[in-house]
Amino acid sequence: MSTIVQKFGGTSVGSTERIKRMADRVMREKEKGHDVVVVVSAMGKTTDALVKLVSDITSEPSKREMDMLLSTGEQVTISLLSMALQQQGVEAISFTGWQAGIQTDSVLGNAHIQSIDTGRILNELDHGKVVVVAGFQGVTEDGDISTLGRGGSDITAAALASALKADRCDIYTDVDGVYTSDPRFVPKASKLTSLSYEDMQNLASMGAGVLHPRAVKHAKKFGIPLYIKSSFEKGRGTMIHGKAKQIGSNPVIGVTFEKDINRVEMFDCEDVEGFRKALMCELASRHIQADVYKQTCRNSLSLLIKEQDLQEVLSILDKEKEKWMYSRIERKRGLSKVSVIGQNIKSQPAIKMDMCKILLENAVRVKLVGESAISVTAVVEKSQVQLAAERLHTGFGLDYKVVMKASM
Amino acid sequence: MSTIVQKFGGTSVGSTERIKRMADRVMREKEKGHDVVVVVSAMGKTTDALVKLVSDITSEPSKREMDMLLSTGEQVTISLLSMALQQQGVEAISFTGWQAGIQTDSVLGNAHIQSIDTGRILNELDHGKVVVVAGFQGVTEDGDISTLGRGGSDITAAALASALKADRCDIYTDVDGVYTSDPRFVPKASKLTSLSYEDMQNLASMGAGVLHPRAVKHAKKFGIPLYIKSSFEKGRGTMIHGKAKQIGSNPVIGVTFEKDINRVEMFDCEDVEGFRKALMCELASRHIQADVYKQTCRNSLSLLIKEQDLQEVLSILDKEKEKWMYSRIERKRGLSKVSVIGQNIKSQPAIKMDMCKILLENAVRVKLVGESAISVTAVVEKSQVQLAAERLHTGFGLDYKVVMKASM
Repeated sequence: MSTIVQKFGGTSVGSTERIKRMADRVMREKEKGHDVVVVVSAMGKTTDALVKLVSDITSEPSKREMDMLLSTGEQVTISLLSMALQQQGVEAISFTGWQAGIQTDSVLGNAHIQSIDTGRILNELDHGKVVVVAGFQGVTEDGDISTLGRGGSDITAAALASALKADRCDIYTDVDGVYTSDPRFVPKASKLTSLSYEDMQNLASMGAGVLHPRAVKHAKKFGIPLYIKSSFEKGRGTMIHGKAKQIGSNPVIGVTFEKDINRVEMFDCEDVEGFRKALMCELASRHIQADVYKQTCRNSLSLLIKEQDLQEVLSILDKEKEKWMYSRIERKRGLSKVSVIGQNIKSQPAIKMDMCKILLENAVRVKLVGESAISVTAVVEKSQVQLAAERLHTGFGLDYKVVMKASM
Repeated sequence: MSTIVQKFGGTSVGSTERIKRMADRVMREKEKGHDVVVVVSAMGKTTDALVKLVSDITSEPSKREMDMLLSTGEQVTISLLSMALQQQGVEAISFTGWQAGIQTDSVLGNAHIQSIDTGRILNELDHGKVVVVAGFQGVTEDGDISTLGRGGSDITAAALASALKADRCDIYTDVDGVYTSDPRFVPKASKLTSLSYEDMQNLASMGAGVLHPRAVKHAKKFGIPLYIKSSFEKGRGTMIHGKAKQIGSNPVIGVTFEKDINRVEMFDCEDVEGFRKALMCELASRHIQADVYKQTCRNSLSLLIKEQDLQEVLSILDKEKEKWMYSRIERKRGLSKVSVIGQNIKSQPAIKMDMCKILLENAVRVKLVGESAISVTAVVEKSQVQLAAERLHTGFGLDYKVVMKASM
């Protein structure tokens, strides 16, 4: 018996009508003879409505109570989808995160899954039931409800697929696959029909929002194929698996960008390297992603962080001020990052040079250039990021063609 | 240190504005130096909105999935109230039913609390926190989320107050106390400022909707005073406790009624008494309240049941048909029950006679008269129940006066 995990995002279950359509999809998979586990997000606008209630009450809600609140969203969807399945004669049972045995660490609001006790799910699958699990949520060792942060339901689906050694994890979403860049902003972006885990991780970690890098990591661990496809359109999506090979010689597989980036710089630190290490450690413990650069010439430390993390990061820096003795702090909002992605890019210095050249030729003002093993990143004004992404996409030969082919 | 349990119903927490006002009330109690545990219902219209979603999907939702769905309502309120308290500088923590250790039996949709493991609550109270608990819900031994049915949050509050050996349980609601009859329909109903547990149980079990009889039972077990008062108006409410004494000689303390009652009658049963016992047992196991009468002259068995239980009862009767061999079944909708309530009423046959006389004089057509130790009940047409209640209220000398006084 093969096991399939299906994940439906918020748009896919945005109304009772859509929930019924998704129930059809689940039923079709079940009728093929598979064991089916379904992971769902909160219905479309539910989270926004809950956040609106909070804003009437406080501007600084505790993370524990936010997780308590937001986790109700998926709980509504699992019950409704189970009812829709039962209505069609399919035996189904819903589980919240804690009922599904999803144990997380205690970084509330942005928790990481630590283990999954699949006993209850396996028992229900053995009884022939479809198991519908609430995505995005789990439970801490202390019995608090936790949420997994952005992309959380994908993470739940991939982690469950891994824990169950599923044959495939299908991610139904409102886009029809993974592209060389975000097609909403780069019209000539091409669909990638097959991708390795590594390439997907690289794209995702540098801003390709279609999938969270941790979801890819979970799937990669036990080699579970991840299939990204549209909930609403037919046609082939993107398969992410261990057997994908690069076709062609282009070392660049995509151009990613993040629009709302803040730069925070601390000047005249006494021990820049010590500060950098302590800060990286603190940010990691809170699961906050940040690029940290030091400029030894002026003993300054620069952070590039997402808008949503700004308040938390500033409060950390405020607490650390006495210890690290920086003289002043400067922040700049309205920045963006644009990156070209490919494996071992660092070993090909021509790419960085080409990138700078393309940006210069198109009058994009570059604030900062950084690089990692898999990317070169430029920080630019938010107003110029779309121009930059489009020109880099063209410049690196990514326009309008399927640059990777399935090799299954 | 004394412990106070406060319960706020759906109207009291119907908006974020009201939640903030209730947070003020909690804070005032906390500032008096009490340990405070708060129990809340779902916000006003939440349950209706969730039920509407279900009606788009199925007309026969499974009870397990309904409980999964409906329990989200209180979970929203506990998180918002905790945030409102924190915003005012009060340390607070929210618990769902399962987190609060509320274990129920597995009669989903209408579960009874079996035990409460107060460890987590006591631990947080020891740390000086206000503990905000989701009413109406618990968890079964199998780890399924259960709900307690009508009046469930009051039951949670009283059961918690008992388990915590609280000094008082305050029930904040949209009425300002317990009356000799429902003042919305019987304008001359008088407020009872003090009541014994027994009298309150008698009123509640015969239809006084202000409090569920099981809530009274939980409070009575450890002698916890229950104080019913308005969330919105100042003034004295109704105190229910062990020391209340009846003042005056009126054996009747109230007139209650239930508007939507169905009568189901099975004819020509082979063994009426056997059938009656088996049926009572089956109904009790499902926590369905019903009056069961047998009429040996025509070997028939009559049930009086609430509208909401009709479908379930009919499906039980259908399954039992072969076993009990009744020839046909008749149902009648649109009936109502009206009862006069008092301790040991059965030992005073004049009350039953007076009741019949009053109804007769006012041209109320009586379908059936039944009695128990604490009540005489007449079944009448729904169109006549208000008239019947008003005239009985007057006839038994209950109009416009405080018939019981606090004796604390």
